[in-house]
Amino acid sequence: MSGIVYLVGSGPGDPDLLTVRARDLLDSADVVLHDKLPGPEIIDLLPEDRREDVGKRAGGDRTPQSEINDRLVELAQEGQTVVRLKGGDPFVFGRGGEEAAYLAEHGVAFEIVPGVTSPLAAPAVAGIPATHRDHASSISFVTGHEDPTKEESAVDWAALAETGGTIVVLMGVGRLPEYVAELRSAGLSPETPLALVERGTWPDQQVAVGTLATAVETRDAAGIEPPAVTVIGDVVGERDTLLATLQSQYGGDSA
Amino acid sequence: MSGIVYLVGSGPGDPDLLTVRARDLLDSADVVLHDKLPGPEIIDLLPEDRREDVGKRAGGDRTPQSEINDRLVELAQEGQTVVRLKGGDPFVFGRGGEEAAYLAEHGVAFEIVPGVTSPLAAPAVAGIPATHRDHASSISFVTGHEDPTKEESAVDWAALAETGGTIVVLMGVGRLPEYVAELRSAGLSPETPLALVERGTWPDQQVAVGTLATAVETRDAAGIEPPAVTVIGDVVGERDTLLATLQSQYGGDSA
Repeated sequence: MSGIVYLVGSGPGDPDLLTVRARDLLDSADVVLHDKLPGPEIIDLLPEDRREDVGKRAGGDRTPQSEINDRLVELAQEGQTVVRLKGGDPFVFGRGGEEAAYLAEHGVAFEIVPGVTSPLAAPAVAGIPATHRDHASSISFVTGHEDPTKEESAVDWAALAETGGTIVVLMGVGRLPEYVAELRSAGLSPETPLALVERGTWPDQQVAVGTLATAVETRDAAGIEPPAVTVIGDVVGERDTLLATLQSQYGGDSA
Repeated sequence: MSGIVYLVGSGPGDPDLLTVRARDLLDSADVVLHDKLPGPEIIDLLPEDRREDVGKRAGGDRTPQSEINDRLVELAQEGQTVVRLKGGDPFVFGRGGEEAAYLAEHGVAFEIVPGVTSPLAAPAVAGIPATHRDHASSISFVTGHEDPTKEESAVDWAALAETGGTIVVLMGVGRLPEYVAELRSAGLSPETPLALVERGTWPDQQVAVGTLATAVETRDAAGIEPPAVTVIGDVVGERDTLLATLQSQYGGDSA
């Protein structure tokens, strides 16, 4: 009679980029707990009588993580089959690890269903490969929007610059000036290519391309707003080649 | 009358982790070009009369990349709808970027269909979150099996160690001793947790957990062989907690 929680990645936003398993679980779950990160197209797929929005509360504040954790445990203990739907992949900067640990500590069975992660998919559909034999031997994901309870940035931007690989910053629109400055003072050339991809794989996807030197004006001229990822590295330069014949279903300006 | 090439990620190997779009394209394509990286369960889904194995040639040698590129162009120019199926995500260390560039340079229309990437999914289903608020502000993917035409390693292991984030090494079974030594001499503690996940999400998935100090004996005692990913960082320690109630469909020893 005890239930189960599926921690499911929704992918970047296009419902066709849900996995087959995610799609099946969304169809069969007793209840789906979600916030707005999966995006409107996927949220619209969820039947209203089987979904709970745990993103914002009535007053507009964010639901505390502890309430979400408790609700997952409660529903499972009632014997329900619960999907906790997370934007992108459940274990990439989404507190999926904390939710899983809480379930384990409370004796609630859970399963992980990986998803297509936005920091790869958003650049990819815009014609930017994460890695390239000639340009990038590594790729690093980092969050621009850190835990506000931390006193100082835990991200070592200088070390990331030193890797020589592609850097993708998630939730990095607001703090763009700060980390661009950190990467430049760590020695990255001002000419390093940079792209911002807003709402990657959504119908209103937007792409803006510049350099580390022009990053802030590129963002502002294109009116890039969250949610977006920032891609930094020579792979961004591949886009000029790829756009010649790249087909895209997303946005108006990405292909 | 001109065709199109879909560069499609297969995900880590479980057919249920194909995206809905990948599944649809595999069903409708005129021809699917693949190697063995998507794994036997996905390859078995492909009808024999519509698939071409471009992984190995008759003699057992690897098909040169230039032949694969030319074949993609040829099929598209015949007007066919072609799926080029890549293990994991098409743009993560899979030469997908080179294939896309070649298609663009030859005037062949193509589309990118992102997939679930193995360096996230294999650890995830084994109970290892890529990121964790307490442990990792970044995650880096790197390849252990570099382009053999490069004279020296382009991977800056010292910089990766310095990031303080999770490191996932793809194709990193054979060169494990070398990069473990590099990470240790860069200052990572010998007690840093390390896990090897072989055939992540396949029915015969295998997981082995140790530390940087015990990495090679961990690999050898468990008999870990390619394909596998190596995860290095404190997030590996979360697995002890998660295993209490983690459900897994994969392998015999992962949950």
